[in-house]
Amino acid sequence: MRARPLSHPNPAVGALIVRDGRVIARGWTQAGGRPHAEAMALDAAGDRSDGATLYATLEPCAHTSSRGPSCTSLIASSRLARVVAGVVDPDPRTAGQGLAAISAAGIVAEHIGNSTCSASLAGYLTQRQQGRPHVTLKLAMSLDGCIAMASGESQWITGQSSRAHVHSRRAMADAILVGGETWRTDRPSLDVRLPGLEDRSPQRLVLTRGAAPEGVTAIAAPDGIRNLADVQYLYIEGGAQTAAAFLQADLVDRIELYRAPIVIGEGRMGVGDIGLAQLADAHDRWLLTERRQLGTDSYEAYDRTRAPALPSRARNT
Amino acid sequence: MRARPLSHPNPAVGALIVRDGRVIARGWTQAGGRPHAEAMALDAAGDRSDGATLYATLEPCAHTSSRGPSCTSLIASSRLARVVAGVVDPDPRTAGQGLAAISAAGIVAEHIGNSTCSASLAGYLTQRQQGRPHVTLKLAMSLDGCIAMASGESQWITGQSSRAHVHSRRAMADAILVGGETWRTDRPSLDVRLPGLEDRSPQRLVLTRGAAPEGVTAIAAPDGIRNLADVQYLYIEGGAQTAAAFLQADLVDRIELYRAPIVIGEGRMGVGDIGLAQLADAHDRWLLTERRQLGTDSYEAYDRTRAPALPSRARNT
Repeated sequence: MRARPLSHPNPAVGALIVRDGRVIARGWTQAGGRPHAEAMALDAAGDRSDGATLYATLEPCAHTSSRGPSCTSLIASSRLARVVAGVVDPDPRTAGQGLAAISAAGIVAEHIGNSTCSASLAGYLTQRQQGRPHVTLKLAMSLDGCIAMASGESQWITGQSSRAHVHSRRAMADAILVGGETWRTDRPSLDVRLPGLEDRSPQRLVLTRGAAPEGVTAIAAPDGIRNLADVQYLYIEGGAQTAAAFLQADLVDRIELYRAPIVIGEGRMGVGDIGLAQLADAHDRWLLTERRQLGTDSYEAYDRTRAPALPSRARNT
Repeated sequence: MRARPLSHPNPAVGALIVRDGRVIARGWTQAGGRPHAEAMALDAAGDRSDGATLYATLEPCAHTSSRGPSCTSLIASSRLARVVAGVVDPDPRTAGQGLAAISAAGIVAEHIGNSTCSASLAGYLTQRQQGRPHVTLKLAMSLDGCIAMASGESQWITGQSSRAHVHSRRAMADAILVGGETWRTDRPSLDVRLPGLEDRSPQRLVLTRGAAPEGVTAIAAPDGIRNLADVQYLYIEGGAQTAAAFLQADLVDRIELYRAPIVIGEGRMGVGDIGLAQLADAHDRWLLTERRQLGTDSYEAYDRTRAPALPSRARNT
């Protein structure tokens, strides 16, 4: 997670080297994609990795790049006893060949499917498997579900902790998107205003059929995100029609909900018409996966439950 | 809590007798108000109460009733060493005189202010101090704050566990209230459909300026609850205009919020116009005091933060 999104264009991978039940080294994909997590961990461990186990969130890469040797070859020339990967890399240049090559080098190589690992790679896996970014929709509302007063006043519903949390989430996104109306009305800065993270402000996108405002990329319809090959994580901040358009297209993977302990009454709602025909169709789509208190506000994350498109978990090498 | 609301017309009191750090007897106000909690606990303890401490949520009563002796006199003739009350009884017939009489009988008598005790007596205290019932507003909504689809379809947003929980909350109320429109449109049965609790269905009220439907009591405005001297706990189940009317009158003490992990989009909202002038006025009014998971739904209770109108906590006898 600490590699996200700086590892771009590479996936944000984590690796641990464990010997005698103790973590002796760790690594994560460095800014720009190199060194890889495994290379960093092996370098940190040095000779102490003899006979140790390396755990990686993603299968070590099997393809040699102009930027350096593959992790598989580094591992093959190490004295590791065992390698465990939480996700098989869907990249066709690796796709099981990494674990196979490690095994061929006499090192035990295993895939142990792990949902925390796949969640940490959501942006990369969604691009590989669905050809689009992983999409998070942010909503900030009152107890009675209003995102603004009827007058439009929305500063502030949530408190300082929630707003700082939103900025930290922006800093983990490759791009932020708002609707054209929100852009024209609120002129949101959509930047990261956290000390030390100011340079992490992501690319800005606007959902509009019109021309893109200066400094912003325009997308005419939700489906346009299929062209954003360089965006692993897309963060949508509203408004209601934009939220509805992405939900109706089933292009939202995660809802992050901030709720303040206030009642507004007959204010504006966060989500416009999503074309729901009957209540039964709304169920079994969202799973609460995270919850925390942010000052007096509540934060919840809901992930879209989809038939997993991950490589078979039975695939052990 | 187990005495609520069957203790009617008496407050629902709980008592424990503790000796050598162990609870040796317990009591709670019985159906119809007698025996009182202290009498039941003393009876259960018998001789074992010698030298023990009796803890009661409310100050033992000092007034003799035609229905039996006062708890104060029972305690005075016991061999208890100490009595601790969590709340001083605002009933002018007791109001500190209970603890004073116990002390005069040579038994240590203390008031140790305790918010859990006062919360358990909320209905009784609100009637004594504000001349009206304690009011709970129930809301059941989707993640995006809808209580129904735009078509009015609302069966079901929440799941079975939430609905059973609502029935258990009804069983703890003296009266349930809905708005006139909800009554005419939905014809809600407002009864308790839980095995063994069918006879706990509370009195039904409708907020309407018109005539009361058969079997229902009409209240013309929220302020009308000031005439409900026999209702300690009032449970409001909607609709949006009724919720707004009570919130605007600041006559809601607790909001119980059920949220299902579904998105509806542009549905109906739970709370109508409450006359909020600016967002700042909405803050610092509600405190999250309870949260639990009910199946896949989330349940939260928010209590209204008011300047406490309780008897002074400094009052020890």
